[in-house]
Formats: sequence, structure tokens, C-alpha cells
Amino acid sequence: MTSRTNLDALYGALADPTRRSIIERLGRGDATVAELREPHAMSAPAISKHLRVLEAAGLLERRAAGRHRICRLRRERLVHARRWLHEQTEFWESTLDALGDHLDEEPTR
Amino acid sequence: MTSRTNLDALYGALADPTRRSIIERLGRGDATVAELREPHAMSAPAISKHLRVLEAAGLLERRAAGRHRICRLRRERLVHARRWLHEQTEFWESTLDALGDHLDEEPTR
Repeated sequence: MTSRTNLDALYGALADPTRRSIIERLGRGDATVAELREPHAMSAPAISKHLRVLEAAGLLERRAAGRHRICRLRRERLVHARRWLHEQTEFWESTLDALGDHLDEEPTR
Repeated sequence: MTSRTNLDALYGALADPTRRSIIERLGRGDATVAELREPHAMSAPAISKHLRVLEAAGLLERRAAGRHRICRLRRERLVHARRWLHEQTEFWESTLDALGDHLDEEPTR
């Protein structure tokens, strides 16, 4: 997966309220598919489809635990998505900071 | 626009390499539509469509300047998109930090 398709899949996965809510839930701890489905008025296939999108974006991992499958959030992928946004805003913020410092130093006339 | 559709539109707008490249370009300064189109092998309607998606997400503003229209990036919207990602990762990062501190303090046996 190139970095480009990487970010396409990541931001695409985040562009949905159900998927963001699943991410928020997994942020508090691992969960079964049934647990993830519980707060949503959605069919099992509909939730499964969202989980597959999250998986394809590298945001979710599943492992077998007895008869259940446990889902885990791959937080490092959220950090990766945050990084590009950070890069786009840090130059601007540092410029604003520098401007602020400059104005602070400006002698009053 | 509710916060929910807000983030849907924002992350949806970011899920495309051409639109991210336009954002990167506008991060270096305002530009005309022709300037934004220049690095992309794309028709004017194709670029316009991307600009409309960015506009709908609140990421882009246009103003008239003589015969041209100048595009400006609304960086505060990138900051908004970053915030949700930050919220999802900061708890985890603070937990990792706390764990690190705990391990540092652990007496050697």
C-alpha cells in the first residue's frame, strides 16, 4: 500500500459517523463484533461492512478468542492520519506564533 | 452543519490525493484556479469538481480579484479535522507515558 492510497483509505474510513463511533468505542478497549454492533440500530451485515472498511484502512485487527472474534483498534494508524494534518497546519501555527512573538516584542510608541 | 456531517465532509474531502495536493499547495499561499490546476493533468471541470468538494467541506474559500478568483485555504478547518484524531489518540498516548513513568520508577530486584 503506497502512502497515497494509504491516506485515501484512512480518511475515507473516517468519513462516516458509524465508523468514527466504532473507533471511539475501541479506543476504550477491545470488543467483540456483537459489542460493537450493540449501540447501533444496524444489521450484522451492515456493521460487518463498516468493520471491513476499517480493516482495509489498517485501523482494525481481529483475532479469534474461543468462539468470538475480538476487534482491536490500531491506534498507530490514527497517529498516521493525524500526521499529515499536523504537517499541513504546523507551518501556519509556527508562523502565527512567530508573529505573536514579534508583536509582543514591538516597542510601544 | 452539525459536527457529525461536518467531520464526514472534512474527512471525505481529504480522502483524495488531488484534493490533498491542492491543500498542500494552498498551504504555501493563495492561488488562482489556473495555478491550482497547473500541476495536475486534469480538465478544468475535473479540478472544479474537486474545488467544490473542498468548498463544501469548508476547507476552501474563493474571492474575486479582478478577472480572477483567488482560492484560500481555511486552515482552521484542518485544525478541526485534526482535533478529533487528537482526541482519539491522546488518552492512549498519556496511558503509554504513564506506563513508561511507572516502569522507570519500578525498583530493580
